[in-house]
Amino acid sequence: MDSRNGALHRLKIAKGHLDKVIRMVQNDEYCIDVLTQSQAVQGQLSEVDAMILEKHLGTCVADAMKKGDNKNSVDEVIKVFRRGRG
Amino acid sequence: MDSRNGALHRLKIAKGHLDKVIRMVQNDEYCIDVLTQSQAVQGQLSEVDAMILEKHLGTCVADAMKKGDNKNSVDEVIKVFRRGRG
Amino acid sequence: MDSRNGALHRLKIAKGHLDKVIRMVQNDEYCIDVLTQSQAVQGQLSEVDAMILEKHLGTCVADAMKKGDNKNSVDEVIKVFRRGRG
Amino acid sequence: MDSRNGALHRLKIAKGHLDKVIRMVQNDEYCIDVLTQSQAVQGQLSEVDAMILEKHLGTCVADAMKKGDNKNSVDEVIKVFRRGRG
Repeated sequence: MDSRNGALHRLKIAKGHLDKVIRMVQNDEYCIDVLTQSQAVQGQLSEVDAMILEKHLGTCVADAMKKGDNKNSVDEVIKVFRRGRG
Repeated sequence: MDSRNGALHRLKIAKGHLDKVIRMVQNDEYCIDVLTQSQAVQGQLSEVDAMILEKHLGTCVADAMKKGDNKNSVDEVIKVFRRGRG
Repeated sequence: MDSRNGALHRLKIAKGHLDKVIRMVQNDEYCIDVLTQSQAVQGQLSEVDAMILEKHLGTCVADAMKKGDNKNSVDEVIKVFRRGRG
Repeated sequence: MDSRNGALHRLKIAKGHLDKVIRMVQNDEYCIDVLTQSQAVQGQLSEVDAMILEKHLGTCVADAMKKGDNKNSVDEVIKVFRRGRG
């Protein structure tokens, strides 16, 4: 399973867990349990982000840097980092 | 639209955006665009978390505190806060 | 050691680690090592936040809720939660 | 003011704000005000992290990639990203 399929696999698991969050809200389940499940989905998406960013650095960014074209690719990665930090 | 329906509405929007993340990975779209979309989903879920936590504090936690039963409800909220912080 | 002294103790450790971050930047140490140290400081501050919030919920918020004055204290806690999430 | 001095300047401001957090706890100031100040320090450190990471990507990582030595530098950046995400 390559990185792309690994990411897809995890995204589909995250989607299943998000469906569960929706059902839990519809069924008025205990708020703390809903929050725990929702935070798990966010953790799964964040893990996929790390996989995608890792591949991006090793391919697109590496290619750009070999051509001496650093600025755009660095700016894009820093934007992702800043958004991830809040 | 009450808080429960507001949360459901936002969760369904987040699910639609997660479906889009999945399609973007399937179509090998540009990594940075996928990351931007994935981070948007996480931001939407985090916003739903704030709505759910707000309702929880104003109902379950307030009821527990009126009965002098602080410890369990405080512990649960702090666990959610810690997970949110990483 | 009560909660207040526990928080102070940890804040002083965090300050010592922040001094180290400053020295590392002054000495042009390896960026990744500086980032690791800076993220450790942020983790320590976030841990202190959890301690302070825990005490706040168990005292000020509990007192307000016993008086039926939920709204202000809930709003304040949610603002802290949102900022913590980014 | 170059990137290194910009980072140092911001770190010293963050240190001044951390000193204020310590004084606020010593003076038993209102918890929510302490949390607001502490979260501001964390935001400042996170902003410095982005500056340091930006410089790191444009120098050390770019140099490594020009030599075809991607793996170590990518692994290091991803570790920073994961820690930043929690």
